Amino acid sequence: MSSGNYISSSTNWSQSLKQLIESHSFQGFIVTLIVINAILLGMETSTNLMANYGDAIAIIDNIILTVFVLEIIVRLYVYRLKFWRDPWSVFDFCVVFIALVPATGPFAIVRALRVLRVLRLLTMIPSMQRVVGALLSAIPGLSSIAFVLLIFYYVTAVMATHFFSAAYPEWFGTLGRSLYTLFQIMTLESWSMGISRPVMEQFPYAWAFFIPFILIATFTMLNLFIAIIVNAMQRYTSEEREETATIIHESQEHIESSLHEEVVQLRAELKVIKQLLLETRDNQSLAPK
Amino acid sequence: MSSGNYISSSTNWSQSLKQLIESHSFQGFIVTLIVINAILLGMETSTNLMANYGDAIAIIDNIILTVFVLEIIVRLYVYRLKFWRDPWSVFDFCVVFIALVPATGPFAIVRALRVLRVLRLLTMIPSMQRVVGALLSAIPGLSSIAFVLLIFYYVTAVMATHFFSAAYPEWFGTLGRSLYTLFQIMTLESWSMGISRPVMEQFPYAWAFFIPFILIATFTMLNLFIAIIVNAMQRYTSEEREETATIIHESQEHIESSLHEEVVQLRAELKVIKQLLLETRDNQSLAPK
Amino acid sequence: MSSGNYISSSTNWSQSLKQLIESHSFQGFIVTLIVINAILLGMETSTNLMANYGDAIAIIDNIILTVFVLEIIVRLYVYRLKFWRDPWSVFDFCVVFIALVPATGPFAIVRALRVLRVLRLLTMIPSMQRVVGALLSAIPGLSSIAFVLLIFYYVTAVMATHFFSAAYPEWFGTLGRSLYTLFQIMTLESWSMGISRPVMEQFPYAWAFFIPFILIATFTMLNLFIAIIVNAMQRYTSEEREETATIIHESQEHIESSLHEEVVQLRAELKVIKQLLLETRDNQSLAPK
Amino acid sequence: MSSGNYISSSTNWSQSLKQLIESHSFQGFIVTLIVINAILLGMETSTNLMANYGDAIAIIDNIILTVFVLEIIVRLYVYRLKFWRDPWSVFDFCVVFIALVPATGPFAIVRALRVLRVLRLLTMIPSMQRVVGALLSAIPGLSSIAFVLLIFYYVTAVMATHFFSAAYPEWFGTLGRSLYTLFQIMTLESWSMGISRPVMEQFPYAWAFFIPFILIATFTMLNLFIAIIVNAMQRYTSEEREETATIIHESQEHIESSLHEEVVQLRAELKVIKQLLLETRDNQSLAPK
Repeated sequence: MSSGNYISSSTNWSQSLKQLIESHSFQGFIVTLIVINAILLGMETSTNLMANYGDAIAIIDNIILTVFVLEIIVRLYVYRLKFWRDPWSVFDFCVVFIALVPATGPFAIVRALRVLRVLRLLTMIPSMQRVVGALLSAIPGLSSIAFVLLIFYYVTAVMATHFFSAAYPEWFGTLGRSLYTLFQIMTLESWSMGISRPVMEQFPYAWAFFIPFILIATFTMLNLFIAIIVNAMQRYTSEEREETATIIHESQEHIESSLHEEVVQLRAELKVIKQLLLETRDNQSLAPK
Repeated sequence: MSSGNYISSSTNWSQSLKQLIESHSFQGFIVTLIVINAILLGMETSTNLMANYGDAIAIIDNIILTVFVLEIIVRLYVYRLKFWRDPWSVFDFCVVFIALVPATGPFAIVRALRVLRVLRLLTMIPSMQRVVGALLSAIPGLSSIAFVLLIFYYVTAVMATHFFSAAYPEWFGTLGRSLYTLFQIMTLESWSMGISRPVMEQFPYAWAFFIPFILIATFTMLNLFIAIIVNAMQRYTSEEREETATIIHESQEHIESSLHEEVVQLRAELKVIKQLLLETRDNQSLAPK
Repeated sequence: MSSGNYISSSTNWSQSLKQLIESHSFQGFIVTLIVINAILLGMETSTNLMANYGDAIAIIDNIILTVFVLEIIVRLYVYRLKFWRDPWSVFDFCVVFIALVPATGPFAIVRALRVLRVLRLLTMIPSMQRVVGALLSAIPGLSSIAFVLLIFYYVTAVMATHFFSAAYPEWFGTLGRSLYTLFQIMTLESWSMGISRPVMEQFPYAWAFFIPFILIATFTMLNLFIAIIVNAMQRYTSEEREETATIIHESQEHIESSLHEEVVQLRAELKVIKQLLLETRDNQSLAPK
Repeated sequence: MSSGNYISSSTNWSQSLKQLIESHSFQGFIVTLIVINAILLGMETSTNLMANYGDAIAIIDNIILTVFVLEIIVRLYVYRLKFWRDPWSVFDFCVVFIALVPATGPFAIVRALRVLRVLRLLTMIPSMQRVVGALLSAIPGLSSIAFVLLIFYYVTAVMATHFFSAAYPEWFGTLGRSLYTLFQIMTLESWSMGISRPVMEQFPYAWAFFIPFILIATFTMLNLFIAIIVNAMQRYTSEEREETATIIHESQEHIESSLHEEVVQLRAELKVIKQLLLETRDNQSLAPK
């Protein structure tokens, strides 16, 4: 019985913990801590501020980190396996626990990645979560057209490496460099003065490679972009059409019910008439006896 | 009684002042003055013109400024507290009274800001006011997605400062410089030839920072832009749907009223029949006496 | 009578000329000449071709020009004042007669402007005329937002001249240069590496001028662009709504006519019943005499 | 009879070959080979990998090429003339057989074009085929506006050659170079710092050529882009309107059928009444005998 008691009290404790971490005030507290942390992490980039207040900043930063770690542990304890099924929770776990990775070898990178913690603002505030969710949900609809673009991009990168690697190793020396340079050209950054014109000094027909590449790549990207607009509008106009359909059905039902009412009244009058007729017939059959 | 008279005449005067400043001709006069002022302020940038006609320009400019100040004072007198509730009026007040700030220390800036007066064209002409209002009204719908972009931008700026501040202090030396450089990269201006390629000389994997940054930032900005289009279309298609709904309701009412009319006629005929039947019955009950 | 005859034959001649120049084959002939002329004008840019075939090209060019001049004269004779009311005709007149301007002083410019003749392809082919018409018809809907952009652009140019003219005369020396440089910044071309970063060396807070300028200018241009899309969609969805309205009205009429038919049949039956009743009453009144 | 047998067995063989090449597993096998080939062709660009595994890569590449050639031959045998009517098949034929062209003279180009084979991923996977089909189907709707842009582009290129060829032969020396430079300006790449500002050193009014060119070209391209969006939306809203029309017709039919039902019931009652009346009259005519 003491064991049952223990479980029950544990459950109660778990319940009240859940209520705590799901309360508005607690979430507001965490959001406030993230904002303070964001400011501190920004201040850490200033060598001047770090020279004067470095210790204080480090202490506050560690306190906030401790609160975050405790919060994640509590959520792990309360939700258990459900915690890992929620992608936002997994994201929270990763960006908090990255700070606990021993920053020995590639120190700067882990220090820098600590700022990813600030992205928790996007997972903690519901309206931000919705926006990020909407942005991510736009991606699957683009995957097939993005895949076409990727194949085209890969094929042209292999071709560019074959054509120009010997003469311009810095831009097209390897497949990786070609991919980078063609990405730059896709963004139209210095494609002509920076890349195409110098290349045309050795290969006068290089424009026959670069200009079709730009036309096809930008046209495909444009269609990718249009796909997002049209998808968004489709979702909306479908809703509008359904609302119109609802209005039509309501109108139909209203017409039919008023039709029925009118007919009910007509039938009532007919009933009266039938009654009169029956009376007349009965009188007749009684009368001329 | 003289005091009451005084108040009344003051009210009358206030009324006629209000009529004056709200009249089309007065507003046209102010708009004309703003246009002349715009031209003069443009001429003031020419040292050549200022050498020859500087005095004349300064005199006309001061006259126009005096008219503007008087106009604002009249509006303040007429509308009193209501003046401050209208954001367009507050804007007018600011851009006119900036010229009265003593331009001693940072002289050039105050001189230059005097040209903001020309923006009154946007507050005085009603069609311009509507356009500016429409532009401003598009902003709140974008705030949540813009906030996501801002958080992402801040986080990447802190990371860039950690990564590259030592090697490229001019571009990433402080958080402010990183923010500026990443804004430049977001606009795709010289992102590769100007920033990313030089950085890759020391950090060969810098592309793994810049390319995802560009992809995420442009994708988010694209969605920001799409949000404006979709919002504008939604407002419009809602209106269309409501018009369709009105047409459906009108149709429904027309059908029901014509149904009612037809039924009224049927009932009239039934009434005749009932009357005939009643007569028949009455004849019957009289007949077999 | 001979004079009347003369007028009548003149009218006949004018009529047949009109039929000629409005015939498909004649218009096809002119289009073919324009295409040949376009090729010749392209060939004239090659010094090599001009050295060898310069005389032949010049002769063919002059022949074609003569045909064009004659065509315009005929159209002037046939349509008279109506010619000048059609903007396409006025355009044709201008681009053809520019070649007759004596090319003495600024020789190169008039020679170069002769190629504007090729733009007649856009006025001669009906489908091209429609496209150009559609492009031009999109402009008025944009005028108010474009005007807002222009005022903003002028104000910032005056401010930039005040701020930077002394230090950077090449970019901001005069109002004209500032307008040019700010147009370049609006297109985002080298705005940072080319203009803003050099300016920030002397004015460290110049970003506070350039970044808001870019944000406001691009946001306004974006809305200008969105206005075109939304206008195009509005025109289309209005048509769709009207078609839906037509369908609803047709449905309404169909329902009402079938209602009327059913009621007509009911009334026919009621008529039979009334007839029977009248017969019954008449029998009654006859019977128990 | 043996000949008939031979034909029949040949037909059977052809049938089973057709079943084979149209089977999912065979198409999956070819897609796998294309992916492997894509990776190999990527590896071939690395001199390091080629030095060590060059022979192995070449052997596998040749085996895959042989399979592709056999596949095309089988499809040619099975579909015969129908093969050439399908543009995707013709594309497959070209990109496979390009590898069999003797790569003697311009060796690098043919080697490089072998990677076009990877584009077969777009023709083999149905969902990719649809995307590419959709991209291609957007082009005809743009042809007339693209043609307007082309004429404008050609005319300005001829003019630019006349104006600037002597002073800036590298950019505007020939018609081809002018076309290339104006294409660069259309993409807004270094149009000002790279081209227009240097040209303005000799021709101070060159901005009067470049800025209108940019405004007209970008406005036309914008409309080209808008045309794609509006076309896509039109296709969609037409479908929506047809669905609404269907709903309206269904509603109409439902109302009419329920109207008919109600009227049927009324007529049944009227029939009873008529029956009663007829009985009454018959009684009457019998009674007063």
